[in-house]
Amino acid sequence: MKRGFGSDNHAGVHPRILQSILDANTEHAPAYGTDEWTERAVGEFKNQFGKDAHVFFVFNGTAANVTALRAMARPWQSVFCSDVAHINVDECGSPEFLSGCKLLPLPSHNGKLSVEELEKAFIRRGDQHFSQTQVLSLTQPTELGTTYSLDELKALIAWAKSKKLLVHIDGARLSNAALYLKKTLKEITTDLGVDVVSFGGTKNGLMMGEAVVILNKDLAQDFKYIRKQSAQLPSKTRFIACQFEAYFKDGLWQQIAEHSHQMALYLYEQCKGLAGVTVREVPQSNAVFATIPSHWVKPLREHYFFYVWDENTFECRWMTSWDTQKSDIDGFVALLKEQRL
Amino acid sequence: MKRGFGSDNHAGVHPRILQSILDANTEHAPAYGTDEWTERAVGEFKNQFGKDAHVFFVFNGTAANVTALRAMARPWQSVFCSDVAHINVDECGSPEFLSGCKLLPLPSHNGKLSVEELEKAFIRRGDQHFSQTQVLSLTQPTELGTTYSLDELKALIAWAKSKKLLVHIDGARLSNAALYLKKTLKEITTDLGVDVVSFGGTKNGLMMGEAVVILNKDLAQDFKYIRKQSAQLPSKTRFIACQFEAYFKDGLWQQIAEHSHQMALYLYEQCKGLAGVTVREVPQSNAVFATIPSHWVKPLREHYFFYVWDENTFECRWMTSWDTQKSDIDGFVALLKEQRL
Amino acid sequence: MKRGFGSDNHAGVHPRILQSILDANTEHAPAYGTDEWTERAVGEFKNQFGKDAHVFFVFNGTAANVTALRAMARPWQSVFCSDVAHINVDECGSPEFLSGCKLLPLPSHNGKLSVEELEKAFIRRGDQHFSQTQVLSLTQPTELGTTYSLDELKALIAWAKSKKLLVHIDGARLSNAALYLKKTLKEITTDLGVDVVSFGGTKNGLMMGEAVVILNKDLAQDFKYIRKQSAQLPSKTRFIACQFEAYFKDGLWQQIAEHSHQMALYLYEQCKGLAGVTVREVPQSNAVFATIPSHWVKPLREHYFFYVWDENTFECRWMTSWDTQKSDIDGFVALLKEQRL
Amino acid sequence: MKRGFGSDNHAGVHPRILQSILDANTEHAPAYGTDEWTERAVGEFKNQFGKDAHVFFVFNGTAANVTALRAMARPWQSVFCSDVAHINVDECGSPEFLSGCKLLPLPSHNGKLSVEELEKAFIRRGDQHFSQTQVLSLTQPTELGTTYSLDELKALIAWAKSKKLLVHIDGARLSNAALYLKKTLKEITTDLGVDVVSFGGTKNGLMMGEAVVILNKDLAQDFKYIRKQSAQLPSKTRFIACQFEAYFKDGLWQQIAEHSHQMALYLYEQCKGLAGVTVREVPQSNAVFATIPSHWVKPLREHYFFYVWDENTFECRWMTSWDTQKSDIDGFVALLKEQRL
Repeated sequence: MKRGFGSDNHAGVHPRILQSILDANTEHAPAYGTDEWTERAVGEFKNQFGKDAHVFFVFNGTAANVTALRAMARPWQSVFCSDVAHINVDECGSPEFLSGCKLLPLPSHNGKLSVEELEKAFIRRGDQHFSQTQVLSLTQPTELGTTYSLDELKALIAWAKSKKLLVHIDGARLSNAALYLKKTLKEITTDLGVDVVSFGGTKNGLMMGEAVVILNKDLAQDFKYIRKQSAQLPSKTRFIACQFEAYFKDGLWQQIAEHSHQMALYLYEQCKGLAGVTVREVPQSNAVFATIPSHWVKPLREHYFFYVWDENTFECRWMTSWDTQKSDIDGFVALLKEQRL
Repeated sequence: MKRGFGSDNHAGVHPRILQSILDANTEHAPAYGTDEWTERAVGEFKNQFGKDAHVFFVFNGTAANVTALRAMARPWQSVFCSDVAHINVDECGSPEFLSGCKLLPLPSHNGKLSVEELEKAFIRRGDQHFSQTQVLSLTQPTELGTTYSLDELKALIAWAKSKKLLVHIDGARLSNAALYLKKTLKEITTDLGVDVVSFGGTKNGLMMGEAVVILNKDLAQDFKYIRKQSAQLPSKTRFIACQFEAYFKDGLWQQIAEHSHQMALYLYEQCKGLAGVTVREVPQSNAVFATIPSHWVKPLREHYFFYVWDENTFECRWMTSWDTQKSDIDGFVALLKEQRL
Repeated sequence: MKRGFGSDNHAGVHPRILQSILDANTEHAPAYGTDEWTERAVGEFKNQFGKDAHVFFVFNGTAANVTALRAMARPWQSVFCSDVAHINVDECGSPEFLSGCKLLPLPSHNGKLSVEELEKAFIRRGDQHFSQTQVLSLTQPTELGTTYSLDELKALIAWAKSKKLLVHIDGARLSNAALYLKKTLKEITTDLGVDVVSFGGTKNGLMMGEAVVILNKDLAQDFKYIRKQSAQLPSKTRFIACQFEAYFKDGLWQQIAEHSHQMALYLYEQCKGLAGVTVREVPQSNAVFATIPSHWVKPLREHYFFYVWDENTFECRWMTSWDTQKSDIDGFVALLKEQRL
Repeated sequence: MKRGFGSDNHAGVHPRILQSILDANTEHAPAYGTDEWTERAVGEFKNQFGKDAHVFFVFNGTAANVTALRAMARPWQSVFCSDVAHINVDECGSPEFLSGCKLLPLPSHNGKLSVEELEKAFIRRGDQHFSQTQVLSLTQPTELGTTYSLDELKALIAWAKSKKLLVHIDGARLSNAALYLKKTLKEITTDLGVDVVSFGGTKNGLMMGEAVVILNKDLAQDFKYIRKQSAQLPSKTRFIACQFEAYFKDGLWQQIAEHSHQMALYLYEQCKGLAGVTVREVPQSNAVFATIPSHWVKPLREHYFFYVWDENTFECRWMTSWDTQKSDIDGFVALLKEQRL
């Protein structure tokens, strides 16, 4: 495949993470999370999220989200999320199927929920005919590449807590948010009262692997059964754990986030003045959203793959990743300039 | 961890499979199974199982089993399996939870089901009060290390087909069965009318990865949605596919099966005469089941980990794997000989 | 309880239906739908919906809807419905929980869906990440008391069929729709290609009981298991069947629909000019929606119970039923006139 | 239909219960359990089970059982029951489907579980691969017509409590057990530490209606949502509640239990010496189990319907009910005597 801007899961494995896998491939290790790599990786997570974090590795992002929801809500409860949330539009109904819960997608602005919309939707408490909302799920950064500010997060979470809701963060790219906000992972989750984080690895340079980080200890107790019953307990756990170990070691996670963000900024800068290209806003993570003439899509994608985000408007999503090079962007921008209106 | 006989998932990744991962880590690849590694790996499966095989990679063995069952049965239907089947006793109720189906565990002998027991249990057809059996699930080799002979398979499957049941094979170690029976994978599945195989990789030298091999094309059509909704669609699929590619290349799968079987035979031979050790029978795959005095367990496990299979009788399971060395066995047997009755 | 306009399920049992129960209470009858009352009642349904209708009695409206959806869609599929649909807002997430499917609520106008909105929402076919829409669920009459015209139904159903979707009618008050449209039940369902109808009894004078009327025979085959597994198989079925028998006998169903409609019209006529009362439109079934000053609610409800439909606007729903009397309306209108702005 | 011994749900409605329905059919009543009949009926249950009982009406016995299990266990937990339990063999997999739990059917003797079998099956606590047992479900009287003695109940429940399991009673005919044991309903449930009872009405003279009686208040809090989401919230609740009101009034429940028991005893006495008839034991509720020559079944059933309980041995179940008459039994016994060996 040619290189491109399709998704941060089109990139391969970061060399330091791959090396960690090579190093872990030695002798025997007990299965199902009782190995030393898991112990060290969990330690790294505790360093990041606080010592009371409970960490469970799962295979992919959908799994992290749905097992988190299973832990947080009973089937007769519902989950607030944005209308563009991954759990709402990109998981083939897995959250409803696995948790039994109803999702209540709410209107969003630039991918973000607002207290105002939440307030409007928080109705019919105690009414047995109406699925009772139990969880607020926020995607950080959002599916549209925006990042909730610390103040926005505080307001949303304070509102949720005032209603006794639990707070879930879909953090497939949470490292990018921390980098953008210049905060630690703990400051944007644990310290704000977040209950559970789906913490992404696959889109940040891992081969595969995500972590359910449970910050509310009441939810951690039975999680091992939820994970196993959801078919998400890895047997050779060391090979996921060792990736996270490398990811957090020597600030690699920050370097990757910084690099992918800088590449998005660079792409944004190169595109924003171009005729025919309407760029949404300054990237707040590792995505550029840009609208282009529909007939450009085919010739551009012959050289650099990317997704059309909105089939009606031809807004496209260009994602950068740990391995995006300036030369990729320069080549792509040169192609953009060659297109005719 | 010390080396041992705990499970074939305690072993690491086979060097040739790891090399395949290293080789796959190049540039970008499209996600979700549209990459070239997946295409080639699927081709390898078609070589093994026949050109009409439909192949879907998932993360682990429980996932392979439960997504297979979701494809084969509706929630008001039931599944015959042995009382010691992995789906019955080692998946935390995942089959019932994810498929909605009822399992009907039947008495087994040495891990095997018989037509006689099936016939007795095949009752109340058309009775709306009784979950209607739709699937016969066989584990090959069984959880007790025995392997159904070709004649046994033929009889069981013929019976199932005569009742219009679908046939599922839990083949976490199916390569071992093929090796033991001196048959191709196709001869012990497709050619017998098997509908779906859960084909194992993790226990055979892969880092992680299993394949749902659908031989009945009617069941393949919607499987991609079942997989996604079950949170089992890998994004960086190439890294699972490339492992299977290597696994099938140049007969590696047979070499691994042969090696682990030979090691089990060697262990069996070394143990069978020992005072205090009662070995079950000649290994038919890569496991030795042996009963030892209970007070031996602790000192033995300090040097070589293994599981006590039956807490009442102290029958133990000693598994060999692709990386088991004669020296492991010699060391273990020496320790066995040191124990006092 | 005082009389009122709370719901058509606040009314009791119609005398002719109660008499049918009394008549059925004789000697023994086989359970689970093999009795003669069931046979006759099914015959009545075939008279109404056509001879190929398959009829299954269940206990309540939510059950009729969710068992219908279980028969029509697999868990990885989704269901279009209006944002105000009973299945979306009044069944505590039962459709998602029991069918596993995702509901896709669409914007409605006066309770009605439009082809335009459906067309916009019919996206991502074949995309494994997106729950695939399989069913169009229409409520007839709608939750807002409006009734789809025959042309509207034809257009919606033709659109659905062109997309290979199945069509479900939530017909808790379908008799009212038939009466209003001056059509037979067959003309507004079977003849249009509707696949399954949830046919209401409880709100039309029965004590309890609904029918799932399956017009698409492919969906009928396994329905008995779906019903039983959903805990909706009545044992003493005769006592539900006999109610429907009476309901269809000598046109009682039409008399009830006509009466409740006339009462709604009368209420509408009496209210529409009143100061402070804004009535939505001429009733098309047995409901009047009217907005009143918020401080009127309490004193009015002391004498005549009703529900505030929208807590923000104080639009109220006043429902009439088989037992509504002109005197009820006259008394209520007199009270309305006493209220001060 | 001819009269017979098919099931206590083949009988109709007891006249006093039917009269209560007639009396309840007056004016309007609020729906969904807020009516005065429900209040009074709940009061009657509190009189019987103790003032802390929480009572929820549902439509049928399967519903009572599965909603109870949903309240008591999470999907990764399992339920001990007898191999002949209604939840295991007569509910089409509804418990697994609706609760997500695994059932662990245990060998029974005369329909009864023993502490010995429970103890053997109570394994692998804390093992994430194994569904964790959370509930002991007992049927009282059992499906084989036997009744656990108070001592047996005490031992089983004490064992369950010592393991921190919750205790469920499937009491479709619990009144018969109370009568047989000469105890109050409270003495055989609440006082023993039972957590939830499925209390039957339909088989005891009601038209339809069962009650989930929650004695452990922690389980009651969310039950209204479970009931609604399970499609078991009756709208015209008064018509179920009024039946239970009559059932408990003036000891009717005891009269019905006494009558059906006496009829079973009489049938037993008349049969036990007959050539060709092997009767199981003295009836402890309202069933007689008898083995007869297979060729008798057809001619007998032409006049008196009953079920063959075991298709291999031709053991038959003859059930008596509130309306069984001595003349029914005399006629049946006369027929039995006419049969040839």
